[in-house]
Order: sequence, then structure tokens, then C-alpha cells
Amino acid sequence: MIAMLDIIATFAFALVGARIAADRRMDYGGILLIATVASLTGGSLRNLFLGERPIWLQQPWYFLSILLAVAITIALRITRPVGKVVLAMDTLGLAVAVVSGVQYSLDHYAPSFAAVILGVLTAVAGGLLRDVLCQVEPVLLHRETIGTACTVGALVYVLIEPTSLPNGAVALISGAVIVLVRSVSIKKGWNLPKVK
Amino acid sequence: MIAMLDIIATFAFALVGARIAADRRMDYGGILLIATVASLTGGSLRNLFLGERPIWLQQPWYFLSILLAVAITIALRITRPVGKVVLAMDTLGLAVAVVSGVQYSLDHYAPSFAAVILGVLTAVAGGLLRDVLCQVEPVLLHRETIGTACTVGALVYVLIEPTSLPNGAVALISGAVIVLVRSVSIKKGWNLPKVK
Amino acid sequence: MIAMLDIIATFAFALVGARIAADRRMDYGGILLIATVASLTGGSLRNLFLGERPIWLQQPWYFLSILLAVAITIALRITRPVGKVVLAMDTLGLAVAVVSGVQYSLDHYAPSFAAVILGVLTAVAGGLLRDVLCQVEPVLLHRETIGTACTVGALVYVLIEPTSLPNGAVALISGAVIVLVRSVSIKKGWNLPKVK
Repeated sequence: MIAMLDIIATFAFALVGARIAADRRMDYGGILLIATVASLTGGSLRNLFLGERPIWLQQPWYFLSILLAVAITIALRITRPVGKVVLAMDTLGLAVAVVSGVQYSLDHYAPSFAAVILGVLTAVAGGLLRDVLCQVEPVLLHRETIGTACTVGALVYVLIEPTSLPNGAVALISGAVIVLVRSVSIKKGWNLPKVK
Repeated sequence: MIAMLDIIATFAFALVGARIAADRRMDYGGILLIATVASLTGGSLRNLFLGERPIWLQQPWYFLSILLAVAITIALRITRPVGKVVLAMDTLGLAVAVVSGVQYSLDHYAPSFAAVILGVLTAVAGGLLRDVLCQVEPVLLHRETIGTACTVGALVYVLIEPTSLPNGAVALISGAVIVLVRSVSIKKGWNLPKVK
Repeated sequence: MIAMLDIIATFAFALVGARIAADRRMDYGGILLIATVASLTGGSLRNLFLGERPIWLQQPWYFLSILLAVAITIALRITRPVGKVVLAMDTLGLAVAVVSGVQYSLDHYAPSFAAVILGVLTAVAGGLLRDVLCQVEPVLLHRETIGTACTVGALVYVLIEPTSLPNGAVALISGAVIVLVRSVSIKKGWNLPKVK
């Protein structure tokens, strides 16, 4: 199940990354590179911290889903500002990545608090590096509530995981919480406060 | 002893990171993220290069000290330019991180020259990533003598470590050298030369 | 053979990195740091992903070649825009790094498709981080055909490696393809297309 979730998140992040790179006037090669970095960084870091090889090293499916995302971006000439579809893909990617990241970390004997951190890292690291390489202000640090949504979802996961709920239900509930928190906060314009 | 030193350095780096993030008008989430990155990157990289999991993966104390640093920053509404206290915390963090980085590397069978590099890396990597993510000119590369101070301190450590001096004394002397080099070079306005 | 190739690539990347850092008005310490990052990042990442310690951890020769490159840069006061010699060094470094990266990955049981990715990563990661730290637009993402040349060379390597050709010939042919693709594309002004 984790492998399938990971590939869905990879495709979603690659699509968002490719669109931002195309928007920054990069050529096909730059688009492919940003899509790859955006979609593989988080899971790779999680695996390195846990002492494992990144999963893409043994699995060509990750790259095929990245190539598909880039091909779609180029074929549809998607360069307009973030639209509803891209935003929905991004939210889906975040939810799936947090769930797969927390589960993978628990499977590899990380304590609960570390699984929360690694779950959030899996979801947000790629987007952060994508924005740094595209030389735009990191969305994660300046707008929206990506970090909050992912942290809340990861906390819900480790809290309900020890109950008798089946794994699928735990994943679904935690993922739904992330989608809910992000959607509501965008709609209502909620933000965390700043230091005055 | 290394664990205690690491937590002191973590707190110091988190405090400096939180202040810079607050200064850049980030919200509470961004401040927490920058404080985390600034304080955990160096030690994590050191451990990855040595083939070990990062220590924070098994130790919740690191995160508690980061949360404390962020809470203090928000409670005191610290947003003014780097003051004397923050500069002192930063220097303390650098000295402690170099000492713990060199010792940890030697404990894990790194040769002396690599222990010097890994000690400096432990101290400076977090601040470098912090500045990149905050989109400010990296202090390490453009001002002051952070790199020089850390390198000198790390060299002193590996030079006097094989003597009969107790471990505590080796750590204290190397740390004091770092504080001294940085303080004097800031006071006197010393810089390394540039290519003309 | 891989060790020797790696040291040649290290020297070449260190020289290019030092020149760009000097151009950005960094002091001797900043130049040394950028030269180190530019030359060691790619190989270090490759090794981490494969579950190995970076080679520089056991081998002082990498640092000696970096120090030599920095000393030459400072002694010759090289600060003009990228000249022919620097460009040739960079191309040589890319070709050598791809070849050593692909071979090292295959030696460590990476599947062919992953060896291609890791070979390209070995060659381009250092330059990407160098440009981010120097706060210039990443060459890899915006100009030239570095990524294309390296990818073509890595593909050639894994395609002809299973034949009865000796290792040295495989390396030489793949490296020559990289030099050729990059040189021709620079001379002819070839670029990959952009999304319109």
C-alpha cells in the first residue's frame, strides 16, 4: 500500500513542480529536473534518516510517473498561475506523503514523535527545495498552512494508529484531516500569527 | 557529554534561527521550521556521512529545546537586528557544535582530517541552509570569520586530543579558541582577504 | 580507476567553483567553502543514496586537490567571466563525474536506470548547490545543455557496458559523448525547447 501511495504523491508533486518550472521559463530539461526534485526529495531524506536506500533506487515506476507528469505539462502547455486542479493535486500529494511517511517511519522503528517529524518532512521537503531552485519565495514558509495541516494529520495518525482501527482507516482519516485543514484554511484565509 | 553539548548547541542555533525568521516576517510555523532546520541540519549531515541515524530520531529533547527557543522568541517579541545576546548564543552554539562534531566523528572512526571537516560542517551547515531558506545573503560566505574560527578550533581539537589531557579539557580549550577567534575578529573587524 | 577519475573531477569542479565564488566577491574562506561544496556534493549524495560513506571521508587527496584549485585561483587572481579554460575544465569534470558515478552505482548493485540517475546526480548536484549558495541563477536550469549531455552520456554507458568492450573503452566513449554533446550545443547555440 505504501508503494502505491508513494507513486500517487510522486505524480502529484511532479505535476505541481513541472508547472512552476514551466512558469519560470525553464526548458524541458529544467522542468524535468524540478519535477524530479519536487517529488523525490522528501521520501529520499526520510529513507536516508532511517538508514535505508531511497525507494526509487529499486523502482522505475517513480520515474515513469514523473515523466508522465512532465509530458502532460508540456502537452497541455500549462503555464498559468496555480489553478484549482494543481492546488487539488498538491493537497492530495501532501496528504498521501504524510500518511506514507509516518507509516514507513513506524515500520522502521522510529518512535512516534520522530514519525511525526519524518511524515511532515516527507511531504514538505520537496516543495521547499523546488521553490529554492526556482528562486521563488518558499510557499511553505510564507503563505498558507501547509506545515500546520501536515503536522495535524501526522499527529492524528500516531494517536489513532495504536487503536484497533484497520491500517486503511487510519490512513484515510489522517489524510482527510490534512485535506480538510488545508482546504478550510485557504477558503477562510486563516494563517498562523506573526511576531509583531 | 556529547548529548548534553548537542542540546545546548541546538537551543542556541534554534534561538538565532527563530529570530532571523521572525525578522523576515514569517508566521509561527515558518519560525518553528527555520529554527528546526538551523539547529538540526549540521548534526544530521554529520551522522548521515558517518552512516548513523541522526540523534534527534531517538531523542525528543532536541525538539523540546527547539520549542522552548521558539516560545521564548515569540513571548519576548524579539525582532530587532542581531543583538549582543543573540551573537553570544550563536558563538556558543558554534563552539559547542564543533567540539561535539569532532568528538563524535573520532568516536565513529573518522580519520583526523575528516573529523575536522565534519566538526566544521556540524557547526556551519544549519546556518547556511537557514540563510538560503530565509533568502538572505549567507553570513558564513560574506561576513565575519565563522568558518575560520570553527576550522581553527577543530584543528586545535585533533592536535591536542592524542595528548594525555582529559577529554573535558580538550573540549574546553578548543571551544575557548573558537570563542576567542570569533570575538577578537568581530571586535577588530578582521576579515580574510579577497581576490582583487 | 574510479578514485583517480573522481579526483580529476573534484579538481575541475573546485576550480570552477572557486572562480565563481571569487567573482561574487567572497573572501578566501568563502572561496574554499564554495569550491568544496561544488566538488564534493554530487559524489557524497550518490554514496549516501547507495548506503555508503562519502569517499572523501577516508581519502585526504580530495581536499588536497581542492586546496590546490583554490590556491591556483587566488594566485592567478582569476575573476573574469567564464573563459575557455574554465569551460573546458567544467566539461571535463562533468564527463568524468558521470562516468565514475554510473560505474560506482553499478558496482554497488544499483539497477541500470538508477545508475543513469545517480551518474547525472554525481555530475550536476555540486554545481546546482554552488549556484544556490552564490545566489546566481542556476546554470543547470536556465542555460546550456549540461543535463542533456550528462543524461545522454550516462545512457550510452549503461547501454554499451554489458558488451564485451573493456571498461576503459566504455568510460572513454561515454565521456567523449558528453564532451561532444556539450561542445556542439554551446557552439551551435542549441537549447531544449520551452513551454510556450
